[in-house]
Amino acid sequence: MKFLCSATAALVACIIAVPAQAQFRKPEDAVRYRQSAMYVMGTNLYGRLGAMVNGRVPFDAKVAADTADAVVALSRLPWMGFVPGSENVGKTDAKPALWTEQAKFKDLGEKMQAEALKLQAAAKTGDLDAIKAAYRATTSSCKACHDSYTSQ
Amino acid sequence: MKFLCSATAALVACIIAVPAQAQFRKPEDAVRYRQSAMYVMGTNLYGRLGAMVNGRVPFDAKVAADTADAVVALSRLPWMGFVPGSENVGKTDAKPALWTEQAKFKDLGEKMQAEALKLQAAAKTGDLDAIKAAYRATTSSCKACHDSYTSQ
Repeated sequence: MKFLCSATAALVACIIAVPAQAQFRKPEDAVRYRQSAMYVMGTNLYGRLGAMVNGRVPFDAKVAADTADAVVALSRLPWMGFVPGSENVGKTDAKPALWTEQAKFKDLGEKMQAEALKLQAAAKTGDLDAIKAAYRATTSSCKACHDSYTSQ
Repeated sequence: MKFLCSATAALVACIIAVPAQAQFRKPEDAVRYRQSAMYVMGTNLYGRLGAMVNGRVPFDAKVAADTADAVVALSRLPWMGFVPGSENVGKTDAKPALWTEQAKFKDLGEKMQAEALKLQAAAKTGDLDAIKAAYRATTSSCKACHDSYTSQ
């Protein structure tokens, strides 16, 4: 009877967990996914848009707008990689606090997504000064979360 | 004089190269970028949407539409990672032919992006059969390029 209960509980847990985790075969894939999404977002934000904001390359309004679009799309993606069971797997930089402070982590993630939307709106205007201000606000929102929840 | 010419040529080459590559500090970063973008796209397409198409998880029209949106955004991103100087760096799976057949590579990439747009349109309808057909066309367009230009 005890075995049956455990087996049933495990099956229910499995069914509940499937929709959120079906995209990952193993926990390492979830870590790789969230790190990849962050890396692609970072390259577009800091590398591509940042190069224009900081004057390393000439300003190109079309590239800036396209890059801000990409940042908005990417800002929605890493979160599904933070699944239970991937806390201490492989080379994760996520601090233990990330998993115990889920409400604060979610809030910081949503703030970043909101700043990315403002950056997209600024980029659509083609005004470099507006883009610079929105870029600073967006990168600050990245930093706020990384300072709290990653070891690098 | 010969030195001056070489130095000038190098400087001009550098100036021309900067806009395309300013986002990458070193060639390894370009490889990591394109692989990360492909991985995030693959997880959303094959893992997340594929799970619904193949019946591994229940169909959710909202998740399907959001995922197709993500796939469209991601389909535009890997390309800037295929920069000169990153041909044989680190653990790249790109075959040498990718670099010598740029027109065909670009064409296959554009076909995939076009299929992703059709997938997005299908996902917006919420019709699972239409999504399945567009999913198959999109994944076939991925395969066509990978068969030609990657070693895995």
